Amino acid sequence: MTDRVLIKDLPALADGPVSVSGWVETVRDQKKVQFVVLRDESGAVQLVNPRNSDDQGVVIADQPATTISALTQGSFVSVTGRLKHDERVKLGGIEVKLETLTVASTAIAETPIAVDSGIDKRMDWRFLDLRVPRNALIFRIQTTLEHAFRTYWIDNDYIEIHTPKLMGSPSESNAELFKLDYFDTTAYLAQSPQFFKQMAQAAGFGKVFDIGPVFRADPSFTSRHATEFTGVDTEISWIDSHEDVMHMQEELLAAGIAAVKEKHGEQIKALFDIDVVVPTVPFPRIPLLEAKRIVAERGHIVDRNDDDMDPEGERQIAAYVEETYGHEFVFLTDYPTSIRPFYHMRSDEDPTITKSYDLIFRGTEITTGAQREHRVDVLEAQAIEKGLDPEELAYYFDFFRYGMPPHGGFGMGLARVLMLLLHQGNLREVTYLFRGPTRLTP
Amino acid sequence: MTDRVLIKDLPALADGPVSVSGWVETVRDQKKVQFVVLRDESGAVQLVNPRNSDDQGVVIADQPATTISALTQGSFVSVTGRLKHDERVKLGGIEVKLETLTVASTAIAETPIAVDSGIDKRMDWRFLDLRVPRNALIFRIQTTLEHAFRTYWIDNDYIEIHTPKLMGSPSESNAELFKLDYFDTTAYLAQSPQFFKQMAQAAGFGKVFDIGPVFRADPSFTSRHATEFTGVDTEISWIDSHEDVMHMQEELLAAGIAAVKEKHGEQIKALFDIDVVVPTVPFPRIPLLEAKRIVAERGHIVDRNDDDMDPEGERQIAAYVEETYGHEFVFLTDYPTSIRPFYHMRSDEDPTITKSYDLIFRGTEITTGAQREHRVDVLEAQAIEKGLDPEELAYYFDFFRYGMPPHGGFGMGLARVLMLLLHQGNLREVTYLFRGPTRLTP
Repeated sequence: MTDRVLIKDLPALADGPVSVSGWVETVRDQKKVQFVVLRDESGAVQLVNPRNSDDQGVVIADQPATTISALTQGSFVSVTGRLKHDERVKLGGIEVKLETLTVASTAIAETPIAVDSGIDKRMDWRFLDLRVPRNALIFRIQTTLEHAFRTYWIDNDYIEIHTPKLMGSPSESNAELFKLDYFDTTAYLAQSPQFFKQMAQAAGFGKVFDIGPVFRADPSFTSRHATEFTGVDTEISWIDSHEDVMHMQEELLAAGIAAVKEKHGEQIKALFDIDVVVPTVPFPRIPLLEAKRIVAERGHIVDRNDDDMDPEGERQIAAYVEETYGHEFVFLTDYPTSIRPFYHMRSDEDPTITKSYDLIFRGTEITTGAQREHRVDVLEAQAIEKGLDPEELAYYFDFFRYGMPPHGGFGMGLARVLMLLLHQGNLREVTYLFRGPTRLTP
Repeated sequence: MTDRVLIKDLPALADGPVSVSGWVETVRDQKKVQFVVLRDESGAVQLVNPRNSDDQGVVIADQPATTISALTQGSFVSVTGRLKHDERVKLGGIEVKLETLTVASTAIAETPIAVDSGIDKRMDWRFLDLRVPRNALIFRIQTTLEHAFRTYWIDNDYIEIHTPKLMGSPSESNAELFKLDYFDTTAYLAQSPQFFKQMAQAAGFGKVFDIGPVFRADPSFTSRHATEFTGVDTEISWIDSHEDVMHMQEELLAAGIAAVKEKHGEQIKALFDIDVVVPTVPFPRIPLLEAKRIVAERGHIVDRNDDDMDPEGERQIAAYVEETYGHEFVFLTDYPTSIRPFYHMRSDEDPTITKSYDLIFRGTEITTGAQREHRVDVLEAQAIEKGLDPEELAYYFDFFRYGMPPHGGFGMGLARVLMLLLHQGNLREVTYLFRGPTRLTP
């Protein structure tokens, strides 16, 4: 490994020889002195190279001056020089006086995108777009958030599973399904790990989670939909109701966001101008019917031909919760059976209501969770009632026939959480490489 | 949440009332007393129910006796009773005297598999197969191993990325590729995150890792191949050679295996009769040519029509390393250019040799790693030399045209590591739900 120092670690070092590597952000090639701003994954530093002159005061074309004059933006270089602390230097109060500069790779002299380029153009050049510190920070935050989720679960004795993405039959529905030729048969890409994480309950695993890609052949072009995204899924046994799932999810999110605030709070403030708020638990809970009444009182009539909330309703209820409880999250509970999948358990008292919930974060839904129906006879009846073919679900029902504990769980879109946490308007900003109906590259 | 106690925590409790939940492993329904062995995700315990008799000594059909008599194996039940420590009880020196027993879900009276069922049959009933403690333990070990990998990386400032599985063009080759209709065009399933983790280097991310599914339309039916498996991938900038990658990988594996030994060592000894060995670093390193010479001296002539090692050769070199260095791992280095992909960097001194390696663990290859060629002109020439179409790789070459640091990394099959760590003969044993040419279910 080269013995380079990360730029973020330079300020703590004493003046003296250092070695740094990164890419060229700007070059100011002046007559008497050259300045290069060098950036690496941790920060940026000014390199300075006073030019040498001959006796007549004519600048000499020596090294590294000649190389610097030819440097293109984006080229990757390794540098040795002497670190000097100098309060007058705007960029961090330090500079490195150049001794040697080695070009690892010269960028072509072209900058296809600028900070104000449209999002689609930026996605075309995502590898350049991600050099912007603010954009790169998103993926450090994602790393921290995910690791905190996993650590919470593992500390609580969960098993991490990797469910298959190739399936022999459609999972939840025949809509929005990608299919492919699979040797002599047809395979389907998993739309969620739902059935497989339930299988872990039949297997007696107790508590599981799964973070991995899910696929939806969804032709929409909204800012909130993708054809492939990272799903954060969990399923646990021996719950009394969906309340147990909600309780776990609020603890998980609080732990994750606390970790993000601790590790990146200052940088998020600096680059996004956001004060990360660690949510208090419990999160507010409002039954959907009640939420609709509240929203109606605020002047918004949900106008849909099913019983669901609409996006404006989600924003309105979030605004109400923010005003009333000072909270960015709200669980909407007791969703009607009509708009929930067949495997959601229904209320004993009122079978038109499921033991399920959506979680709204800053006005946008990030999760659907529920207690699942574990009684196979009830489950089959509900599937048939929803118009599904029991034949196609036979392997799934088998999971239940040989014994199944009461259980429930949720699925959460990782990018949605990040998008809302960082006040972004579009999933594309918080997805490493976005996939949509017209976006398969890079 | 039900206030059940995990069975593994019972021995530490004082005698008194407890509540446990799990599935029925066996029932012994005797005239005077009934015994149930109940298992949960943490262990098994004996439940005991002395039957009540009337004045004439005739057994009464009361509860929970009647329910117990009808209990089928695999049914999930919740139980309350009194814990009693009793050294005479073989199963952990404790038993629970039953008070109430509630059946959550009755299993049909059928046991489709037994411990000695063939592996394919067991895979058909994977959800029952995974109830066997030894099989379930594998996924606890996987969880610990993976979490230790991630923790090592995150402690060293790596970014976790989720690379897309849907691609607009084939990645490494046109062979073994799954393709699918994608709206008006064709998509391909990623055979590895290779190009996308290299993209992170161009983006200046520095150090990244990615754990996720990879897909190979590989028609082989060996014990070591799958059409979908979990790949453990990493890529780092500013390396001097593949040696830096090897150094990181040996540290990573040592950390992962140490975590497994610490958390599960005793159980692995009990259920697999294996003493987990934490490997010492550095691992032995042998150039491939030298390895072939050693193998030949041991009487095995590698008989292939390319320059690669063969499986018997891998076993032989592993045996040699075990005898000579007492080590279960060996890096084979300096692979010939002829059998390496175009993006492996070639040696400056000898362009017929790449700066790459394979890692052999207990006689089986688990990794290919390399320094990558970051100079785009050299990279393009190497692609053309390998017969690839530069048009199809245009988007990949773009990553390099705008600047790219020297970098390298490796890909490792998670299941292979587990298989070898636990001395298993088949990937199917260590994959949650195996996928092969004729296996898409459950």
